[in-house]
Amino acid sequence: MWGINLSRQSGVPIKRQIYEAFKQRMMIGNLEEGEAMPSTRELASALLVSRSTVCEAYDMLLAEGFIIAHQGAPTRVAPGLRVDISFEQKPRRKARSEKKYAADFQTGQPDLREFPRFSFEQCLKRAAAELSLSSFGYSGACGSLPLREEIAAYLYRSRGIKADSQDIFITAGATHALHVCAALFREQSREILIEDPCHAGMLKTFMYKGFTPIPVPVDESGMQTDNLKNRRGCPVYVTPSHQFPLGGVMTAPRRAEIIRCARRNENYIIEDDYDSEFRYQGEPIAPLYAMDPQRVIYVGTFSKVLYPALRIGYVILPRLLQKRWIQLRTCTDVQNPVFEQAALTDFLQTRRLDRHIQKMRKIYGNRRQILLESLGDAFGDTWRPWGDAAGLHIAVQFDGLRFDESVETICREQGVRISSVARYCIEKGCHEDKLLLGYGHLNHTEIVNGVRLLCIAMCGYLPQI
Amino acid sequence: MWGINLSRQSGVPIKRQIYEAFKQRMMIGNLEEGEAMPSTRELASALLVSRSTVCEAYDMLLAEGFIIAHQGAPTRVAPGLRVDISFEQKPRRKARSEKKYAADFQTGQPDLREFPRFSFEQCLKRAAAELSLSSFGYSGACGSLPLREEIAAYLYRSRGIKADSQDIFITAGATHALHVCAALFREQSREILIEDPCHAGMLKTFMYKGFTPIPVPVDESGMQTDNLKNRRGCPVYVTPSHQFPLGGVMTAPRRAEIIRCARRNENYIIEDDYDSEFRYQGEPIAPLYAMDPQRVIYVGTFSKVLYPALRIGYVILPRLLQKRWIQLRTCTDVQNPVFEQAALTDFLQTRRLDRHIQKMRKIYGNRRQILLESLGDAFGDTWRPWGDAAGLHIAVQFDGLRFDESVETICREQGVRISSVARYCIEKGCHEDKLLLGYGHLNHTEIVNGVRLLCIAMCGYLPQI
Repeated sequence: MWGINLSRQSGVPIKRQIYEAFKQRMMIGNLEEGEAMPSTRELASALLVSRSTVCEAYDMLLAEGFIIAHQGAPTRVAPGLRVDISFEQKPRRKARSEKKYAADFQTGQPDLREFPRFSFEQCLKRAAAELSLSSFGYSGACGSLPLREEIAAYLYRSRGIKADSQDIFITAGATHALHVCAALFREQSREILIEDPCHAGMLKTFMYKGFTPIPVPVDESGMQTDNLKNRRGCPVYVTPSHQFPLGGVMTAPRRAEIIRCARRNENYIIEDDYDSEFRYQGEPIAPLYAMDPQRVIYVGTFSKVLYPALRIGYVILPRLLQKRWIQLRTCTDVQNPVFEQAALTDFLQTRRLDRHIQKMRKIYGNRRQILLESLGDAFGDTWRPWGDAAGLHIAVQFDGLRFDESVETICREQGVRISSVARYCIEKGCHEDKLLLGYGHLNHTEIVNGVRLLCIAMCGYLPQI
Repeated sequence: MWGINLSRQSGVPIKRQIYEAFKQRMMIGNLEEGEAMPSTRELASALLVSRSTVCEAYDMLLAEGFIIAHQGAPTRVAPGLRVDISFEQKPRRKARSEKKYAADFQTGQPDLREFPRFSFEQCLKRAAAELSLSSFGYSGACGSLPLREEIAAYLYRSRGIKADSQDIFITAGATHALHVCAALFREQSREILIEDPCHAGMLKTFMYKGFTPIPVPVDESGMQTDNLKNRRGCPVYVTPSHQFPLGGVMTAPRRAEIIRCARRNENYIIEDDYDSEFRYQGEPIAPLYAMDPQRVIYVGTFSKVLYPALRIGYVILPRLLQKRWIQLRTCTDVQNPVFEQAALTDFLQTRRLDRHIQKMRKIYGNRRQILLESLGDAFGDTWRPWGDAAGLHIAVQFDGLRFDESVETICREQGVRISSVARYCIEKGCHEDKLLLGYGHLNHTEIVNGVRLLCIAMCGYLPQI
């Protein structure tokens, strides 16, 4: 009856099959407006199902308004149901499988093999068992207060940063922090003063928010503040402790200049202190934030010191911006999830993070040394490293050579992943003699072999080496 | 010497105290450009500290460019360091402590007391122990594939929704999903067609993204699609299964009309299927999504069925939008954290979520019944409920009465939290005879007592009751 073919093997309940069959017929117009539905008794006996099954299917059609019941008269098809349901599917793009590289100098990769999995697992388990019931509810856009207090204590003991826990706001990592910052300033400014070169992802985060970047050139001492243009209300994005990608430390006179300039123009400075935990000579660099906490938004993250999929970062916010931040965060993603926050609080409180960072600083420092030695062996004195002895990557300058993005392709074809600094430049034509090598995630052997492969790949690119 | 007072009790390392003292003097100009620093030997003996401590402090100043070393000549203060560091602190706003209500009819609150804590804890612990190392790294903006597969299976068995796991994208909840949707359409449109009344938070999410709402009136059968204006490329936000806040189910003819209208104008429809798991009569309502998967973005969340601080939701996306979604999500907050995703996968796979929802559907259904009976006892026949028997709240109409937001204040002062529907209206002057009562989080006694208190509070507001 009605051409309905029921399948008892399909796993789909019979009532749903009846409902779907009628619904489809109504939408394509096989059953027309006002047409009477068969009685439930009639349909049940025709389909060899119980009457209650048919009634349930009719109830579904009734609840969704496909049919209209009339006291003492047959149930009829509702008007206006016709919709063409024969749409084409766009064929799915084939998922690219992640290529494995024989030598993978990707930047921004911590070594997960060294992640203190067992001790973090303990923190997570404790969090799962001990969290109060109320923390499963909405707990607010600021983040967990115990975590904010532990971050304040950690920043003081590790970096000498004096911050009130109430000025610290938890984020879902550094990108997320910049995303909300961008929203914070969107009404005052459509432009952002930004280092050139800079991190491609961070630049995109601002551009997707409708900002036009105003590039400020960078040299070995970070952003060239002499070139900082006067733009009222325009935010400034900087990486003063370890410029990305060139690695320079912004000098004190430039720091003073950027603060003076920001005050003059009522700009806020967004200080991204990425990788600052990993400095291999001397003490950590003091942040710009310490020079004017009401002018600088300090952005930190645990993605690199712990692991990327943790998705916890933080900002230290000038008080004037806090109310608006909370509104914007609430309308962006409400708050962070609760377990990772509780586990991290424990991990900080027991100083396990401090010990892990200390351990990793030694490991990464050694790897940097091995990379420098391997480059020396492979390329003689044709190159020199840029920037400070810090972070998880290094910018290497090859005198007299020029790299554009094609060097990446050529190397990739030979199983070597590197980036040209040129790819990170907003104004093209600068820093074309530099490559970027990430080494944090590579062990001794991987670095030594990687440089050997890089040397072979580059010989193909540049026969003069 | 130099007026430096060291404190051995402060817990701050001596080298840092020396560094801080000099840095401050340079910034306020007590030490001027070009001035010679004392020799390390001289300073060490004056301060009664070891010379290596002084050397370390000088190294910090040197690294940050506060001082400049000259071969064979004294170290000198760098130029351009002067910055006024005597800034005023804006006094902190006093944190409002969350008020406790004797009767709290807040909407959108699941009952956390019924949360299956122990079994979710087991899932979390298993996730902590079993996750592969690679999942701690960046794993992409789409979300965990096993979770997407479990969601596809769950949607099919619970709602009859046929969706390919590859079209499902994990989000950090429903608000976050709408936030990224808003970014998706910002270039095509500055306007959004939206139900009036609608959820205040969701409206703000679009407005903060720069959208102007075009209100479409709502009645007991959801959005009045006759009033849907033709706006090319303009997204439409709807809650067809259980309109927020009025509770209506959109009828089939209106569903067909909204799809036809969207096709005609090349609009995308954002279908927020909040609370759809909790329907107390009959089968769940089929989503709009099923009528045209390439025109409708389906938004779901686990905040209400599990707990709000989980921060996991999802969208089912038309294929044409997927590439752009991934780009935008990557620049918003990169991805979800990994543990909650793994725990939820387990919770879904073992069907514990299905059992939990089944249990809660019974509990919430009873509570709704109790609320209706209590309202009957308290208010006689002066009121009637709106909408479908579903969700965690109810809209109640009091014939001949008018409520504005002042009713909320008056009730709040008497310990009763309710909302007026008027607060959710974009165009004022409609639905002024309705109140909103959330009941999901209240047990039997709390509901009965709550209604009693509400009745007393409303007598103060409206002596005619």
